[in-house]
This record gives sequence, structure tokens and C-alpha cells, in this order.
Amino acid sequence: MIDLAFDKHNDGLVPVVTQDYQSRSVLMLAYINRQAWEMTLKTGKAHYWSRSRRKIWLKGESSGHIQRIMDIYVDCDEDTVIYLVEQRGPGACHMGYHSCFYRKVAGDSLEIHEERQFNPDDVY
Amino acid sequence: MIDLAFDKHNDGLVPVVTQDYQSRSVLMLAYINRQAWEMTLKTGKAHYWSRSRRKIWLKGESSGHIQRIMDIYVDCDEDTVIYLVEQRGPGACHMGYHSCFYRKVAGDSLEIHEERQFNPDDVY
Repeated sequence: MIDLAFDKHNDGLVPVVTQDYQSRSVLMLAYINRQAWEMTLKTGKAHYWSRSRRKIWLKGESSGHIQRIMDIYVDCDEDTVIYLVEQRGPGACHMGYHSCFYRKVAGDSLEIHEERQFNPDDVY
Repeated sequence: MIDLAFDKHNDGLVPVVTQDYQSRSVLMLAYINRQAWEMTLKTGKAHYWSRSRRKIWLKGESSGHIQRIMDIYVDCDEDTVIYLVEQRGPGACHMGYHSCFYRKVAGDSLEIHEERQFNPDDVY
């Protein structure tokens, strides 16, 4: 199994950029530890390490918005990866948007540039 | 000026996903502190915080491979941003590739899926 530089920074964690395999939109950034990495490779479904809940997290376990792994890219330093995924359901963001990056810098404020896809109260 | 959650994690640093504005390829992942963020907003050129050299880093300062900011996206938690950039020169990666993510997982090994764009010895 391919190893990553888990012990270089960040308490055994490596950041993951999760990108939609069709639109190439960046959906989210999250972290993995070695166990989440191995579970992702083994199951073909995106697993992460939740820093707030301090546990392994299968993306979509509560919302049903599973991410199926299409490809995984590894950077030059082996301390960051990209999950290229098929996002099941309307979105990756717990705020109800397709991407967590639904706002952009517009002068001194943030402007929403995406349509909301679902009401989080219906899902979580 | 828009503030980010610099003090939430990672010693005052926030990760940046840098994405090519045309191809939407993810070029690299790096970190910013508040000063790098302010310099990026002010100059329209991507600045980062180098964790190894412990200093502000204008991307391209030695290679000439400047990244011009086209848009900046901010995530739901305000602890990650995307720089959408025009990458000047042949590539973002110090290994000579357009993207740092020039390898992908292929079974138990990593496979190069990009053409090398330049010889790092000629640039750095």
C-alpha cells in the first residue's frame, strides 16, 4: 500500500483536496490519518479524519452524500493528496452547497457564487 | 480586509489550494499566514508562508513562475481558501511539472501522468 508523509507535519495528518471528477470544482479540503487513507484505498469511498470529532469519518455516513473515488493524485512531497470523486447527492458542503467554496472575495466582502442545493435541516 | 480563521488550527496558518483558472487543475497546496494573505490581496500575486524556510514567499520569486490571482474562494469555515490563478511560465512544481500532483495512484505504485515541462536545474 502506498505510504504518505503522515509524520512530517500536522500530528500524523495529511490534507486532502477533494475535487469533482467532471467539473474539476474543488469540493472541500479535509484531513486523513493513515487509517482513513487505508480505508479509502480499500473501499473506494472517501474517508477522512475529523479533527473536531477525533474519529474516522466516512463522507456521507449521515447525509448519504458518499464520494466515490475515481482517481487519487499524490504531490511531489507526498504530504498532500487529491481525491478525484464522483459526489453522490446534491453537494459536499454541510451548508447545503455543492462545494464548500461557495463564496468568493469581492472587494472587502464575500459574495455567494453558487446556488444552494439542499436545506441542511432536511439532511443532517 | 477579509479575515480568515488563522488562529483555529495549524499555528496561525491556513491552507491554500492553488488552481489553474483555465484547466481547473490543482497546481499545489501551500499555507498562508495573515501577512501572506494581505500581501496576496494587495498585490494580486500569490504569496505563501514557507514552513521550511519560515518566511513569506512570493511564488515565482526565484523561478519567475509568478501566479496572478484571478479569483479567491473561501470555504464555509473560513479556514481554507482557493487561489484561482494564471500560472506564468511552464509550471508550478519545483520538480519541473505543471502541477505538484503529477503522479497518481495505480495499484500499489505511483504513476506519472504529466509531461515534464522544464528542467529544475535550469530554473532554480
